[in-house]
Amino acid sequence: MIAQERIAILGLGLVGGSLARDLSARGAQVMGYDIDPLPLRAAQRARAIREIVDSDFTTLATATIVVLCVPVDAAPTLLEAIAPHLGATTLVTDVGSTKLAIGTRAATLGVRTRFVGAHPMAGDHRAGFAASTLGMFTGARVYLCPSAESSTAAKTKALDLWHALGADVRWTTPEAHDAEVAYTSHLPHLLSAALARTIERAGHDRAALGAGGQSMTRLAASSPAMWQAIVATNHEAIARALADCAAELEAVRETVARGDMEAICRLFTHTGRWLAEPTP
Amino acid sequence: MIAQERIAILGLGLVGGSLARDLSARGAQVMGYDIDPLPLRAAQRARAIREIVDSDFTTLATATIVVLCVPVDAAPTLLEAIAPHLGATTLVTDVGSTKLAIGTRAATLGVRTRFVGAHPMAGDHRAGFAASTLGMFTGARVYLCPSAESSTAAKTKALDLWHALGADVRWTTPEAHDAEVAYTSHLPHLLSAALARTIERAGHDRAALGAGGQSMTRLAASSPAMWQAIVATNHEAIARALADCAAELEAVRETVARGDMEAICRLFTHTGRWLAEPTP
Repeated sequence: MIAQERIAILGLGLVGGSLARDLSARGAQVMGYDIDPLPLRAAQRARAIREIVDSDFTTLATATIVVLCVPVDAAPTLLEAIAPHLGATTLVTDVGSTKLAIGTRAATLGVRTRFVGAHPMAGDHRAGFAASTLGMFTGARVYLCPSAESSTAAKTKALDLWHALGADVRWTTPEAHDAEVAYTSHLPHLLSAALARTIERAGHDRAALGAGGQSMTRLAASSPAMWQAIVATNHEAIARALADCAAELEAVRETVARGDMEAICRLFTHTGRWLAEPTP
Repeated sequence: MIAQERIAILGLGLVGGSLARDLSARGAQVMGYDIDPLPLRAAQRARAIREIVDSDFTTLATATIVVLCVPVDAAPTLLEAIAPHLGATTLVTDVGSTKLAIGTRAATLGVRTRFVGAHPMAGDHRAGFAASTLGMFTGARVYLCPSAESSTAAKTKALDLWHALGADVRWTTPEAHDAEVAYTSHLPHLLSAALARTIERAGHDRAALGAGGQSMTRLAASSPAMWQAIVATNHEAIARALADCAAELEAVRETVARGDMEAICRLFTHTGRWLAEPTP
């Protein structure tokens, strides 16, 4: 029962704020922490959090679940800072877009059996508590990435947490997770930025974008600090995905330059079918 | 006054259908034509058209405005077929995504002074009359591309038509138009298809896409026949845009592989600012 949990959300940005709203709405006792006092106050006013975690983290001793919702490059350091203050059965989890770096750090700390990494495939190009909403995780795919040492109790608690929010939970490993999101999430974001830069360099105004051009450049307005951190913790897999996509793009360019228009028709027929495949 | 015009919409797909709905709603007498009887009947039922253009085009003699709303590779042939049936002061225009090919054909026919090409930057990845809606052109940028021979009367009538629909009209030349949309529209569509293909080839399921990955692959479900035709009529400019984007992507890959994460932060900071620039 999620209503019986005392849950600490560390970092009240878009995802942390949305998580706090959802959990409070379901009756959980939610406490919040942020290095910036503004989202803390906003979260209190929105009744997304009931109390504030003190800056030396001693309040965390009473939490049954702790969720790290900070940028992926800040999460390992934060995990190290809070580890000595956690109760013996507290589930420690996170929401970061990469899972290997945080999982590796958790394994070196006293929380190894209680840590289960999580990655909700939800969000927005906007950042901050102001963009947070109720129901962000309903129907969203959420990857749970336990290590070999994660306890059954911790895994069960993580599953219950996300099921309570209506998420579509998938179990995977940190390695498989990071390899997959390099293609399904990180590549699309970097591609959007590369497209925006290409259009700008060619001297065209962003107001000249049609609906398609707008939707393809929207992600180029994502948080620079967040994406710096994500790329830093998954650069090898991302570099491979970028190389694959550049090769695909070169193949399309060659097809266009050669004037093989039937191949363009076949390409869209193929991708249209792929996109229409039923969800497994 | 648009309500005094007799307007023939040739081709009742997404754009033609939306145009017919909007013009009928504003009191114009709209007649429709399509090689497929299904959208014709659907447009009659939706009261988007009042009459049907006969298959030998003699009805067109009574039209004051004729709008070609067929794929860009079919438009020149259709223009040739209808040219002998048009009245001496009828405005002939179109809605195609490329403007050089149709403009060049118009110049060789008897309609050269009465033709003004148009391109509304509106639409959707869905196709067909079923996807057409009222108000599609409200606030949308619409390029008008007259030739040096287009009459002032024809240009005024084209401007009035799009102003009546609430469009943001911009005058340009067919050459400048085609060079620009290669970057602002055609490149984003081909990039979306290349991304979908990259993710599929890497063995990942489309259900694994998060919100960002979904929005970046949505255009890959666009009409194959329409995109074959668009690429066919603008392949040189599109091949250049694809080469520019591949070079940009390779620069990003090289930055990631080198581990220069601050450059990734600078990239998103730059593109975020570019996207936030006020509309001129």
